[in-house]
Order: sequence, then structure tokens, then C-alpha cells
Amino acid sequence: MPTYNAPVKDQMFVLNDVLKIGTADIPGYEDLDRDTVQAILDEAGKVARDVLAPLNVVGDTEGCVLENGVVRTPKGFKDAFDQVREGGWTALDCDPEFGGQGLPYVVATAVGEQFSAANMAFNMYQGLTHGAYSAIHTHGTEDQKATFLPRMVTCEWTGTMNLTEPHCGTDLGLMRTKAEPQDDGSHKITGQKIFISAGDHDMSDNVVHLVLAKIPGGPDGIKGVSLFIVPKFLVNEDGSLGDRNAVSVGKIEEKMGIHGNSTCVMNYDGATGYLLGEAHKGMRAMFTMMNEARLGVGLQGYAQAEVAYQNALAYAKDRLQGRDVTGAKNPDGPADPLIVHPDIRRSLMDQKSFVEGARAFVYWGAAMIDRAHRNSDKDADGLISLMTPVIKGFLTDRGFDMCTQAQQVYGGHGYIEEWGMSQFARDARIAMIYEGANGVQALDLVGRKLAQDGGKHVMAFFDMVKSYLAEAKGKDEAFDKAFLDPLKAASKDLQGAGMYFMQNGMKTPNAALAGSYDFMHLFGHVCLGLMWAKMAEAANEVLASGAGDAEFLKAKIDTGRYYMARQLPMTATHLKRIESGAEPVMALEAEAF
Amino acid sequence: MPTYNAPVKDQMFVLNDVLKIGTADIPGYEDLDRDTVQAILDEAGKVARDVLAPLNVVGDTEGCVLENGVVRTPKGFKDAFDQVREGGWTALDCDPEFGGQGLPYVVATAVGEQFSAANMAFNMYQGLTHGAYSAIHTHGTEDQKATFLPRMVTCEWTGTMNLTEPHCGTDLGLMRTKAEPQDDGSHKITGQKIFISAGDHDMSDNVVHLVLAKIPGGPDGIKGVSLFIVPKFLVNEDGSLGDRNAVSVGKIEEKMGIHGNSTCVMNYDGATGYLLGEAHKGMRAMFTMMNEARLGVGLQGYAQAEVAYQNALAYAKDRLQGRDVTGAKNPDGPADPLIVHPDIRRSLMDQKSFVEGARAFVYWGAAMIDRAHRNSDKDADGLISLMTPVIKGFLTDRGFDMCTQAQQVYGGHGYIEEWGMSQFARDARIAMIYEGANGVQALDLVGRKLAQDGGKHVMAFFDMVKSYLAEAKGKDEAFDKAFLDPLKAASKDLQGAGMYFMQNGMKTPNAALAGSYDFMHLFGHVCLGLMWAKMAEAANEVLASGAGDAEFLKAKIDTGRYYMARQLPMTATHLKRIESGAEPVMALEAEAF
Repeated sequence: MPTYNAPVKDQMFVLNDVLKIGTADIPGYEDLDRDTVQAILDEAGKVARDVLAPLNVVGDTEGCVLENGVVRTPKGFKDAFDQVREGGWTALDCDPEFGGQGLPYVVATAVGEQFSAANMAFNMYQGLTHGAYSAIHTHGTEDQKATFLPRMVTCEWTGTMNLTEPHCGTDLGLMRTKAEPQDDGSHKITGQKIFISAGDHDMSDNVVHLVLAKIPGGPDGIKGVSLFIVPKFLVNEDGSLGDRNAVSVGKIEEKMGIHGNSTCVMNYDGATGYLLGEAHKGMRAMFTMMNEARLGVGLQGYAQAEVAYQNALAYAKDRLQGRDVTGAKNPDGPADPLIVHPDIRRSLMDQKSFVEGARAFVYWGAAMIDRAHRNSDKDADGLISLMTPVIKGFLTDRGFDMCTQAQQVYGGHGYIEEWGMSQFARDARIAMIYEGANGVQALDLVGRKLAQDGGKHVMAFFDMVKSYLAEAKGKDEAFDKAFLDPLKAASKDLQGAGMYFMQNGMKTPNAALAGSYDFMHLFGHVCLGLMWAKMAEAANEVLASGAGDAEFLKAKIDTGRYYMARQLPMTATHLKRIESGAEPVMALEAEAF
Repeated sequence: MPTYNAPVKDQMFVLNDVLKIGTADIPGYEDLDRDTVQAILDEAGKVARDVLAPLNVVGDTEGCVLENGVVRTPKGFKDAFDQVREGGWTALDCDPEFGGQGLPYVVATAVGEQFSAANMAFNMYQGLTHGAYSAIHTHGTEDQKATFLPRMVTCEWTGTMNLTEPHCGTDLGLMRTKAEPQDDGSHKITGQKIFISAGDHDMSDNVVHLVLAKIPGGPDGIKGVSLFIVPKFLVNEDGSLGDRNAVSVGKIEEKMGIHGNSTCVMNYDGATGYLLGEAHKGMRAMFTMMNEARLGVGLQGYAQAEVAYQNALAYAKDRLQGRDVTGAKNPDGPADPLIVHPDIRRSLMDQKSFVEGARAFVYWGAAMIDRAHRNSDKDADGLISLMTPVIKGFLTDRGFDMCTQAQQVYGGHGYIEEWGMSQFARDARIAMIYEGANGVQALDLVGRKLAQDGGKHVMAFFDMVKSYLAEAKGKDEAFDKAFLDPLKAASKDLQGAGMYFMQNGMKTPNAALAGSYDFMHLFGHVCLGLMWAKMAEAANEVLASGAGDAEFLKAKIDTGRYYMARQLPMTATHLKRIESGAEPVMALEAEAF
């Protein structure tokens, strides 16, 4: 059975030596000294390893079961959820006013990586609650906040997000669920929602559904959509639970993976709902939590790759098969371990260099969210808004690929469920789809984010890379050659793609849209290239100071060199595809397919 | 539920207009007039669509069950197998001396594509039997042939291949199964084999296991391995079934996919086996059927992509979501179909251009096998031997990617098992692993095949491309620009990679091996580029003759242009990775991971 060990040393390296969070000028960061963060991650790591990881296979094999209208989670989930709750792990970055610990989002993100790697399906119950918490925290009335937030911070009550209906996912303007105003100010919600993660279960006292619906008579399409709080059990004045609301589980979906999470069809039959935020402004309310939610999904992508990599590495060191062509490495054994073979090494380096680069990228993004929220920094908000589709789309695509590569290291055993490698790939697969399928992320990036605020944020990104290159250059020739030169070339490819869109996209929108997916990946590679340059620079600095673990730091630099040499060249191909334009993509009429 | 319709028109185009099989100078090909082949494919297509495809989901959900030592296949499999058998579909290219129809392998391959696309797990029962048939046909004594082949041609008796043991897959020299000689000339086989596809089931009267084992006292390692025929039921002199042999099913593996095929742990407890071919030359006997078997797996890769594509296309035409940015295409409906969106179109074109290119590549390879066997053409044999790892490795990797893309077109529904798209990806995944994991294919290609016969075959490949480019050039400027220029550039990248290996691989074997995987993909792209140029050329010819379906032929050219513009640029990145050499790959010591 696979295992998971939290890579605390790697996490600390990013937080402290690369992002230097303790010294960042963001409220709350001043308390993030090395020891405190280390203690949090060490403790969380134990929960991940000892409580959550052992339940990962259990969740996959047992799945969730709907019995007499009630969802039963896999054996052990409820106890584990209690432990997570009691350890305060659900409250890390929540508002102290409602019982939270008020820690920065970046720290909660690092813990989230551990929990998600250990057991993705399990961690979603908490993750969705956090999303709903954020929406109520931002848009709720004082009453709503007082009623719901304290129990959601502790996950005594969990949350869900209800967007999709059978006939509409991305295009929510087609929505049919309706919300009829009642005399007491509440609404009666009627309709069916599908793909509702954590839609119902037996681990909390109440489930707080956030439901998009249309108030009759409102504007057509997406502009007439409002957001409602629809609790499973109505809440009395004194905060105690009242009647069962008219919401029920239609069925649990049979999915490719994340079997431990109950993905429900939810039926609303005149259920009582409370408007959250303004009427007809439901999408805006939903979108305020999108950056955070999508970053969380990007995190899932590399977190699954991390745990898959850990197990592939262990197998590659353990399994004896064939001989090193340059001379036996295990001459007394019947064969050498797999890791001696260059192609296995290539695969492991692909995985390792992706995961570590992705981690830095996501923590950087989380710090940007903290900066946007805690410093009300509009530039940071614009930048993270631009990068969100890259984080979500690129990291989940590549994360899934890396899970597939990790599975491949096992040969035939990778295909047998007993070994657990298939589950990592099957679980990771959903991250490419939910929270906006990756094609929609690419559309969001190219069709919306690039031009946002007059293109200000993408220019800020280019400036950031440019200043970094200028400032880092000239200190170390080997570093310049291995890191800065490839980063500069990749960044040039990205600018070339942006230029192509500017010159052609206005006239022919399809010229930009046909290249959107490649652009998202091109952007992602540049970001990981930038992260690797920063990590290598940080490793060099710590090495020069004589502190730290030299072998660990050298490994960081070697891993980064691999990414720059072997992964970053992809940017040239992405640019070439983009520059081939819309014509080859759209040449066939739909009828000619 | 997904459906499958055999793409007979596309298949016929490759066979007749591109490969022009009816006029090829290979014995048996002279009878392959258009009408005969069309009739075969039409009939087979009906079986695939009406008998096999409807059982695909059934096979996945029910799986195979081991009860009291006997394997039960999913409901409907036995009837379907009877229909396939009675239709003569198992005997297509088998030797008429043993009841076969003596058709060329290339025709059986086209039918195999249909059956495999319709139901991969089901078609493996027949596929493995064919592999075992070929081994006995090539290496068996007259008695062995007379005893086993007639029943295997009809699949009254099915076959298996037993190579892997728990501690060894690729490195078969570590094998422990032993074969003790008996006085009557037979051997007693003792040991455990794992991952035995179609290892046991209820659809045939007997199962003929081909088992690799070591005769005590023979050479160490791989040179001491022999191949044995071990029937489930011993066969009496008169051909009737005798006693149950001492072979049993230990368990059925729980796998990621191909649940309809019984993947068994087989226990041999002093089972009676008959030496097939020479003692200690078991690997040679196994390898004679490797080209064919690996081509068959490459076929599975693109066949799953074909059926996944068919369903993604139907969904993209049907599902209404969002609007075409260039103006509504379905103004009277609530939204436009998915297919109007450029990124969906990109995905569909990726899939379509891959599948059609792969089909031509595999049929070309099958014709090469026919040429090697029927004309005893050593050059053809060398060429197909070189290309086999490319066909197997490249087509299964890309085929799986395309299944993933097809699944992505469905958005959330792609993740729900009910829609069937997950199964295509899960089933296709095994093709990257079995018959030699794709990393081993890359090793075979670079470590063995490139240098085989003094590098003669790779030079022959380069010559083939070069002559083609010279001969095709100058007839049509648009064709030259869209097809020949990119093919030339890609082929130059391939030669550059070959050159890099020559200059560095002798001194530093790892310099070649670290680039082996990229080389396999680079080679694959060049092959598909070559196939697309040939297909476009053929389409142009038919168009010029005024015959054929103009819309169909123009779509071929457009699809080819897409491949050349959007996929072929990958060769540059592969070359760049290869030229970065072994250093970045091997820089980290195994202990530093």
C-alpha cells in the first residue's frame, strides 16, 4: 500500500528561503518565524501520514453509499474528520472573530498540500467548507455570518457549492433552478444540481449548501443568477438545528476516482434559501472565491503528483530489474535497482522537478492572495487573477501526467489497484475538469485576463520577469547559463505569443482562442522556470552562507537545472503552434468531421 | 452509453488509395480487390458495432469473477465469442492448412482495429490466442501443430503468454519457474506466473498456455529460458480432451481497466509441459511473435483513441454550451454546440489527426510484416523490427493522451462512469505497460534496434523519407509547403538526434539512453508526418481523378495540415531534450533523491 511523508524540508525551503515569508510586509506574516511554521507543518505532517494517508485506499475501495436518503462515508472517515477538527486544522486561516486562528493563507496552503496529497477525496470535505465559509464571510450579513461561520470554521457544519445542472456546466446562464421570494424575505429553491462534491455525508451535523438559482422576473441569462444559502437543517433563532429542509440526495455518482468523496445529485423541492449578497449578482459572489478555489485545485494537481512520485521513487530504489549499462551498482544482488536506468531517472526527474516547481508557484500565488486581501493590494490582486487559470490549468494537466509517469515506473504493478498508483492518477484526473475545465481556464486566460485593465497585469508579469533577470544576472556564470538564459528564451516565447494575439486576436478572435491552450501551458512553463531560477538562487545563497544541508541544496539546483534543460524547451513548440493560428484548427467545417 | 461505428471509409482509403494493397507485390495481396476488402470490413464492422461494442461497458462493470477455481466472464461474452468464432473472424490470416482463411495480416489488422475499438478487453481473448498460434506455427513440431493449431484457429481453444513472475517482468533472466525433464520427453512445470491476460475463462474448451521456464542445469539468466506448451486439459492421442493439468488460477487481479479480460495469477504445480522450439532458446521463440504482438498493442492505443474520439465528436456536436465568439451558430437554440469553440475544435483535431495518422502507420507496418513473412524480405523485416518499438510506444502513449482529451470534451460527465469515457482512458492505459513498458520500448529502439545490422535499417528509413521527399516535391506548391517542408524539418531533427547518439552514445551510453524516450516520440512524429504526407498526396490524386468523395478527401488534407502545423513541431523540443544529454538526467545521485 502506498505511503505519504510530508516533504516539510522542501516546504520550509520555499516558505523561508525562497519566499522569505517571515520578512514579507503582509499583516500576520511577521509572526511566521521558522520555528513556528516548522512546528505547524511537522504536526500537520503527522496527521497526513498517520491519519489521512492510511484511509486513502479505503476511501477508494469502499466509496460512499446512499442508504435511505443518507450518505455513509467510508469506514474511518468520521473518526479522522473528528481528529482533523479537534486538532484545529480546519480553522487555520479563518477569521478569529468566528473562531479561526487567523494564520495567513500561505500557511494553510502548505498544510492543504499535505492533507490533499495524503487523501484528496477526504480533504475535499474541508476544502469545500472553506470555500463556502469564504463566500459567506465576504458577502453575508452580520446575522448570516454569526449563524453559519462559527460552525463552518470547525467543520461541525460543512459546505458545498451548487452550480452545475444536467444541461449546463460552463454556461451557467442556461440555469433552470429557480428561487421564489417569500413573504419572510427567504426564497423557495426548486431545481436539480449535479456533481455536488461533499453534497451529503455523515461527518457533520449540518450541510450548508451555496446554491445558484434564478429569481423569476430577473434579467435573462447569467445576469439573472443569484446565490443562496440553503442549509440541510434549518437553524433556529438560538442556533440549534430545526426542521429538515426540502433538499435531498438524488443519487451518488459513480466516478473514475475520488470515491471517498460523495459526489451527489441534489434535489431542491421548494427548499428554504437565504439570499447571499445582492440579488442577480450571484456570479460575482461566486467569483470572489474563485481565485482561492482554483488555486486549491492547482494544488491538488501537484499534490497527487507529489505522493505518486514519493511512491514511484521508493519502488525505483527497491525493485531489482536489469543492470546499469555503465557497470553493476548492486553486484551482490541478482540485479540493480530500477533507479540506475537513465529512462527511469528521466521520469523521476520529470516528476520531481515538476512537483517542486509547482509547489513554489502555488505558495507564491497564495502569498499573492494574502497580499491582495490583507494589504488590499490591487496589483497583487490583478496579478493573481491573471495567474489563476495558469495555476489551475497547467498544474492539473501536468500533475495528472506526472501521476501517469509515476504509475509507469511500477510497470504492470502500476495497473493493479492493490498497489495504489492507479488511484493517484484516477483521483488527479478530476482536477483537470472541475472548477472550470482546463479548456475554460485557457479561454479565461486569453479571452479575459490578458486584456483585463488594459493588459496591465500581463505587462506587470513581464516586467517582473525582466527585472528579475536583470537583477539576478552576472553574479554566477554557471547559474546565468543554466537558469537565466533558458528563462529569458522562454519568456521571449511567451511575449511572442502575446504579440501574436495582439496582432491577430482583435481582427480574428479565433486566432487567439485557437492558441489559448498552448498559451496556458507556455505561461505555466515560464512560471515554473522563474520559480526554479529563484529556488536555485536561494539555494546558492544558503550554500554560500554555510548554513543548511548542502546535499539538499545541491539537489535543488540539479533538479532546477533539469527543469530548465528538459522541460522549458517546450515553450518553443507551444509558440510555434500558437503562431500557426486559427486556420489549421478551424479549416474543417463542423459538418465535415 | 458510448457507441462505435467502424470507420470503414477511412480504413479503405488507407488500404486502397494510400497503400494500394491490391497492387502490392506480396502473395495473397493480388486477391485484395476493393470490393472484397470492403465486404470484409463492412461485415466485421457490424459485428463490432452490434455485438462487441454493447458489451464493452458490461465487461467493465461486471468484470471477471473467480468461483471455485473457474473464471466466469461477464454476461454476454460467451455468446459474443461464439458469434465471432462462427463468423470465422478468428481465422482470417491463419494458415489454411489448419483451417485458416489465409488472408494477409494487413486485412486481419484492419478487422482487429474494429474489434479492439469496440471492446478491447473482449478482443484480447482472441488476440492472445493468435499470438500463441503464431508461436506454435513457427516453432512447433508437426505433431504439436496438428494437435493445437486447428482448435486455436477457431478459438475453440484459446491461448496465453506466460512471462512475468512476481519479482521479474522486464528482466526475465531472474525467472524462477522450472521445467524438469521427464522420461517421456515432457517436462514438469513448477512456478508462479502473474499478469496472465485471458489466463482462464469459460468461453473455450481448453486454454493453451505458453510458459517460459528454466530447465535445471541450463545456462544462467536469460540464456537458460525455454518455452513450453502447457494445456489446461491434456490432449489425448485422438485429439479429445484428457485429464486436467496441474495448472490453476491463484486469483484474478483488480485492475484499473480491461475488467472484461481475466488477468490471472497462474500457479503451475508440476504441470505437464511440452518443449516448444529448442531448449534454452525460449526467448527467441517468444521474440518471433513480438513484432506482431507489439504492433497489436500499438493498434489498441489508437483504436481506443478512435472510439473515444467518435463519442467526443458526437457530444461536441450535441451539447449546447456557450456561443461562438464570431457569431451564434445556433441562434434559435439556447446556446451553440461545443464544436464551435476553437479549443474544442483543437482537441478534436488533435484526436482525429492522431488516429488517422496512426491507422496509416499501423497498416503500413502490417503490410511490412506481410512482406517480411510472405516475400521473405529481409529488408522489410529489418525495417519493421526497427519501427516496432515506435509503433508500440508512441501510439500507446499518444493514444492514451487522446482518450484523456476525448474525456475532457465531456467536462464533468467525462468523469462519471455512466458516460463511458473514463473506461476508454482506463482501458487504453494498459497498452503503455504490457508487451514491454514504453520505457523498455525506447531502450529497445535506441539500445538495440538503431545499431542492428550496422545501422542498416535506420539508414533505410532515412533513405525512404529522403526519396519520398525528392519524388513528391514540385508537383503542388501548397502541398510542398504544408506537408513536405515540415516533414523535411522533422526528419532533420530525427537525423540530428541520431547523429547526437552516434557521436556521444559510444563513449557515454547514458547520453543515448537518457534521450531514448524522446527519440521514440520524435521518431513517431516523423512517421506520422510521413503517413500524412502520403495520405494527402493520395487524396490529391483521387481528387484530381474526379473520383471519390470530394468532401471526405478535402477533410483528409485539412486534417493532415493540422498534424503538420500543430503536432510535428514537437520534434524540435524532443531534439533539444536529447541534445541536453545525460548530465541533467543523471546529475543527482540515487541517494540524493
